[in-house]
Amino acid sequence: VSTADEIRDLLFAYCWHLDRGEYDDVRELFVDPSAAGDLDETFVRPIGAPTTKHVCSNAIITLADSGTEASVRSYFLAQQQLEDFPLQPVAAGRYHDTVVLVGGSWRFVERRVLRDFIGDTSRYLRSEIDA
Amino acid sequence: VSTADEIRDLLFAYCWHLDRGEYDDVRELFVDPSAAGDLDETFVRPIGAPTTKHVCSNAIITLADSGTEASVRSYFLAQQQLEDFPLQPVAAGRYHDTVVLVGGSWRFVERRVLRDFIGDTSRYLRSEIDA
Amino acid sequence: VSTADEIRDLLFAYCWHLDRGEYDDVRELFVDPSAAGDLDETFVRPIGAPTTKHVCSNAIITLADSGTEASVRSYFLAQQQLEDFPLQPVAAGRYHDTVVLVGGSWRFVERRVLRDFIGDTSRYLRSEIDA
Repeated sequence: VSTADEIRDLLFAYCWHLDRGEYDDVRELFVDPSAAGDLDETFVRPIGAPTTKHVCSNAIITLADSGTEASVRSYFLAQQQLEDFPLQPVAAGRYHDTVVLVGGSWRFVERRVLRDFIGDTSRYLRSEIDA
Repeated sequence: VSTADEIRDLLFAYCWHLDRGEYDDVRELFVDPSAAGDLDETFVRPIGAPTTKHVCSNAIITLADSGTEASVRSYFLAQQQLEDFPLQPVAAGRYHDTVVLVGGSWRFVERRVLRDFIGDTSRYLRSEIDA
Repeated sequence: VSTADEIRDLLFAYCWHLDRGEYDDVRELFVDPSAAGDLDETFVRPIGAPTTKHVCSNAIITLADSGTEASVRSYFLAQQQLEDFPLQPVAAGRYHDTVVLVGGSWRFVERRVLRDFIGDTSRYLRSEIDA
């Protein structure tokens, strides 16, 4: 398992927990949990889990010379389906991350979410969010 | 090429052959070919190939200390298009796998397919399947 | 960062620049820039950037014994959204690549784009293209 694999695991853990509404676990992926943003204010709380699926792909990892910090750009594609909401893509965009190795684990220092494409987000994002 | 790369190759080989209707090749990816399930009874047989595209992403690999066994969780997103069926996502879900290194090759011991999201599967899954 | 990671970075750089309409950067990823094809004649020029998102996944890398050449098969799934064009998949297919290590960087020798699935490509591909 390479350093790149470990960093990708961090990206995937974020999606995994987000898709299941496990926001505490999402926050634990950050050096400073508050840097995760206010997830309850951003996302419509899923009923049951998972109700979205964030495909994270195309991760380009730039490792610092120290080997303990990296910047990462990746794509996400969020799919959603609910009983009264047919399977469809609801958003797509980019994650711009700074990650760091602390205590043997990679963590997010910062994650910028760039929502380039927005579909029907009525069941995904809270309306007050400027997507 | 890392161990994680080799394991991901196994995940991708499954999708590659499934999307092309090469079920014998899918079965060969399993230690016990019958563990692949009855593919002919599960999937609508594609006419020509490929008629689906299973994007496999977000693979989180947990390698056992032995280094010859691992459990893997990943996402899949199945897209389909046919002459009379517009391009669309038809299913999305998770693969929960146990994989093992045998004779120098990684193989599936077990693959659990969790179809979280189901779209129009009339051309993808046989109707008798409880999706 | 493994050799496979470096090769995947090349695949992702292609998508990154293509999605942003940075065709000169796409061409620089090829040993012979003309092997990138006539991008202006193939794709509808995005207004602003990015206007497509090419998810590249399922990359199976076969490294030559030399360690400086490889053949790669991967999937792509192109999503698009514009102000007057709802978020949707517009194409999906396969990339069949030959890549080579030159001067410390992996570059494409050849990229074959197989567009297996075609959606509404009116805002993605030029009409004269036989998709």
